[in-house]
Amino acid sequence: MSNSSASTTGLTHFDAAGQAHMVDVGAKDETHRVAVATGCIRMQPATFALVQSGSAKKGDVIGIARTAAIMASKRTADLIPLCHPIALNRVAVDFDLQPQDSSIHCTVTAETRGRTGVEMEALTAVQIGLLTIYDMCKAVDRGMIIDGVRLLEKHGGKSGDWVASV
Amino acid sequence: MSNSSASTTGLTHFDAAGQAHMVDVGAKDETHRVAVATGCIRMQPATFALVQSGSAKKGDVIGIARTAAIMASKRTADLIPLCHPIALNRVAVDFDLQPQDSSIHCTVTAETRGRTGVEMEALTAVQIGLLTIYDMCKAVDRGMIIDGVRLLEKHGGKSGDWVASV
Amino acid sequence: MSNSSASTTGLTHFDAAGQAHMVDVGAKDETHRVAVATGCIRMQPATFALVQSGSAKKGDVIGIARTAAIMASKRTADLIPLCHPIALNRVAVDFDLQPQDSSIHCTVTAETRGRTGVEMEALTAVQIGLLTIYDMCKAVDRGMIIDGVRLLEKHGGKSGDWVASV
Amino acid sequence: MSNSSASTTGLTHFDAAGQAHMVDVGAKDETHRVAVATGCIRMQPATFALVQSGSAKKGDVIGIARTAAIMASKRTADLIPLCHPIALNRVAVDFDLQPQDSSIHCTVTAETRGRTGVEMEALTAVQIGLLTIYDMCKAVDRGMIIDGVRLLEKHGGKSGDWVASV
Amino acid sequence: MSNSSASTTGLTHFDAAGQAHMVDVGAKDETHRVAVATGCIRMQPATFALVQSGSAKKGDVIGIARTAAIMASKRTADLIPLCHPIALNRVAVDFDLQPQDSSIHCTVTAETRGRTGVEMEALTAVQIGLLTIYDMCKAVDRGMIIDGVRLLEKHGGKSGDWVASV
Amino acid sequence: MSNSSASTTGLTHFDAAGQAHMVDVGAKDETHRVAVATGCIRMQPATFALVQSGSAKKGDVIGIARTAAIMASKRTADLIPLCHPIALNRVAVDFDLQPQDSSIHCTVTAETRGRTGVEMEALTAVQIGLLTIYDMCKAVDRGMIIDGVRLLEKHGGKSGDWVASV
Repeated sequence: MSNSSASTTGLTHFDAAGQAHMVDVGAKDETHRVAVATGCIRMQPATFALVQSGSAKKGDVIGIARTAAIMASKRTADLIPLCHPIALNRVAVDFDLQPQDSSIHCTVTAETRGRTGVEMEALTAVQIGLLTIYDMCKAVDRGMIIDGVRLLEKHGGKSGDWVASV
Repeated sequence: MSNSSASTTGLTHFDAAGQAHMVDVGAKDETHRVAVATGCIRMQPATFALVQSGSAKKGDVIGIARTAAIMASKRTADLIPLCHPIALNRVAVDFDLQPQDSSIHCTVTAETRGRTGVEMEALTAVQIGLLTIYDMCKAVDRGMIIDGVRLLEKHGGKSGDWVASV
Repeated sequence: MSNSSASTTGLTHFDAAGQAHMVDVGAKDETHRVAVATGCIRMQPATFALVQSGSAKKGDVIGIARTAAIMASKRTADLIPLCHPIALNRVAVDFDLQPQDSSIHCTVTAETRGRTGVEMEALTAVQIGLLTIYDMCKAVDRGMIIDGVRLLEKHGGKSGDWVASV
Repeated sequence: MSNSSASTTGLTHFDAAGQAHMVDVGAKDETHRVAVATGCIRMQPATFALVQSGSAKKGDVIGIARTAAIMASKRTADLIPLCHPIALNRVAVDFDLQPQDSSIHCTVTAETRGRTGVEMEALTAVQIGLLTIYDMCKAVDRGMIIDGVRLLEKHGGKSGDWVASV
Repeated sequence: MSNSSASTTGLTHFDAAGQAHMVDVGAKDETHRVAVATGCIRMQPATFALVQSGSAKKGDVIGIARTAAIMASKRTADLIPLCHPIALNRVAVDFDLQPQDSSIHCTVTAETRGRTGVEMEALTAVQIGLLTIYDMCKAVDRGMIIDGVRLLEKHGGKSGDWVASV
Repeated sequence: MSNSSASTTGLTHFDAAGQAHMVDVGAKDETHRVAVATGCIRMQPATFALVQSGSAKKGDVIGIARTAAIMASKRTADLIPLCHPIALNRVAVDFDLQPQDSSIHCTVTAETRGRTGVEMEALTAVQIGLLTIYDMCKAVDRGMIIDGVRLLEKHGGKSGDWVASV
């Protein structure tokens, strides 16, 4: 075990001296990797109605949020300091409008074939997708809340499969 | 009222035909504008303990997240499609570690003197600050959840002061 | 007239020694500036029909191209070497579908209040908007051609108004 | 055929529900891929003479446009929403000055070894290369027109070779 | 004196609690600000001869380095974490080839009218300009050294004029 | 030997006609590549003392500079015109505080598995790491000097190992 990558804390982004580094993934295999992340934004019923009508007819909030989410996934390594640059093979963004509690749920699937996972790419896409909805609706509802942003599942890589317990 | 900026929906990012645009702020005054946003990340007690010890001694998760949050605030207009580019005058990022429920709360204050507000800059900084914590701790805890990302208050501009009700 | 900004060629982006520089705009007034640029993409009638139906129902090529155009306008100074960074006040992107020759025309209006014009921002938005249409349709039609990208008019600044002759 | 990548329109950037996605290229082979794109900018004879003399002696418009074109090819995935990030292996930019009609033609060759083509990288380089010429000459000639931006040929990948008919 | 901007160390980028922030410049006046920075790269005489001949005839190392330096000045706030975004009014880059010790000296002048200085923009341009020379010559000379990168002078702002002592 | 990649000068970034290009690396093997670069910043003893105390207790200049260096390594191809985009596998940044001459030395190791080396990524990280220290200390010491930025060693690729002579 080399000094440079040893961590005494379990936090692999720090070496044995506690200094942050972009951890070595050179010895990892290039495998198919998938991550699915989700999150939601809660709003006033009147705001929700505006988004809902808009996405069907005019003022396509959801379409713009989807574009922003996909583009943000490609900027992940620019934003998250210790994240490796990754050549994404696929990004899909789904929005689910839930009228019962005036919330919009965003779920992103990211895939690559590489040496490191795509969890951060999926999560970044969710965050920016939801923020874009906030931006477009904030003129009528500043109190919207983004909640429950988390990883749902990941597959591939040395650590294998992981699925959220709930 | 010109056709190009009229919105029939209340969503000002769309014109009368429902097409998205970067809305005209040229007629707005350059005023002092402040926005405060917040959000938190919830984790396992063992993960929380690692972050807490790290930020005091070695493996400075919080310091890196703060840097990432400040840098992300400057990329807001690159990420959010209809957001105006803004010359930020100040960005401050505070992290509050709450052992009782193993959560870390991030609060960002952004300020400018300009024609449009800085809510999105404050929110983007919160999101990327919390995501950076996720990235650095995900090797030991993939189930962390980002919750309650929202605007706390804003001041300045034509719409004046706004403070979250809770 | 100072040496550093003198040009012997009429090309103001070069100094008296022929070296490129970002020309000094510090002495210019902050005035309201507008630029309108246009351009089109020509395609097969079958491709045109796909875009036309898509923008009405599903597969919103035009909506995504509009978002890309607006975002690109904000990246202009990153792409054009001698272009000054500008705080855009407004960007509006219009697409006109012309069935008679299966072409889509993109017209962008950009505005700012500053010391330098926004012609490049408007032109960059047109270019990337049309390229985005190419990208989304290239699987069915690689022979599409982008034509007639040019400035239609500009207003404001020391050089005043300019309107294309045709 | 999986639902997630099925398209009912032939436009592969949309799934069966008409939602935009970054299409899955994970199953594609890593092959050698080449794309050649071209386009031109038309100007006044006096403007053309300035560029021509400049590129030989001082005020190197063409050299700066070439640098801008190469750099822009690397930003393609940042600009075009559904474009995959690609590790370019080669980019070459050629400018051909045609005195007979005062036009400058830009031809870009891009190459990679990857799972998706480099047409967009070549086209983006052409667009930004020509826009950079516009920027540097606009002080003397605002009426310049960018025309004929299109793909000349592509090689590699599942769809194989394609060469423009003209 | 507010807590949020107080520093106990003299390092203004940290608040009273030692936390980094983007310091508040909102109360500063918008004044004309200039910064001049310099630095050099030392190389083998044979490498120097290649650059020298190239910049006169073909293979314009200096021209490309100048373009890279100007473009880098616009990315300063993206690279330096606590740096404010600035609307640069002018950037000029001069290269001085000194045959007596086979060194190339780069001097950059940056100007703005704003609330904070442009020292970092000038220094970033020098660094990237010299690195670009390194990149283009490294195939023949990997031992080149970049030396003496520093501020020569600055003017404007509350702290007024400063000129390097040597 | 094809015309397009031939260079008559030994400077491989220029073709036989002296035009800059991003040189073809498609025929190179994907090998493990490492580069180590270094450089230092010299300052007043009082400034050095501030940094030294800060990095132990509060005001973590070194931690922020390390984060900036790692992030900058990922932006190399955006900054250096003819540099190929690279998927970095590892970046480690070490700072060595030398009280005897009030200097801080930065050493960066970059690794990839690819078709081209990572010298520029390591050097860019050193430059931006040292510039970040300058930025955070410039309020108390504008005369700091960055010196000795150079490659220490590289391994892998066709040209094999190289180690600086001193």
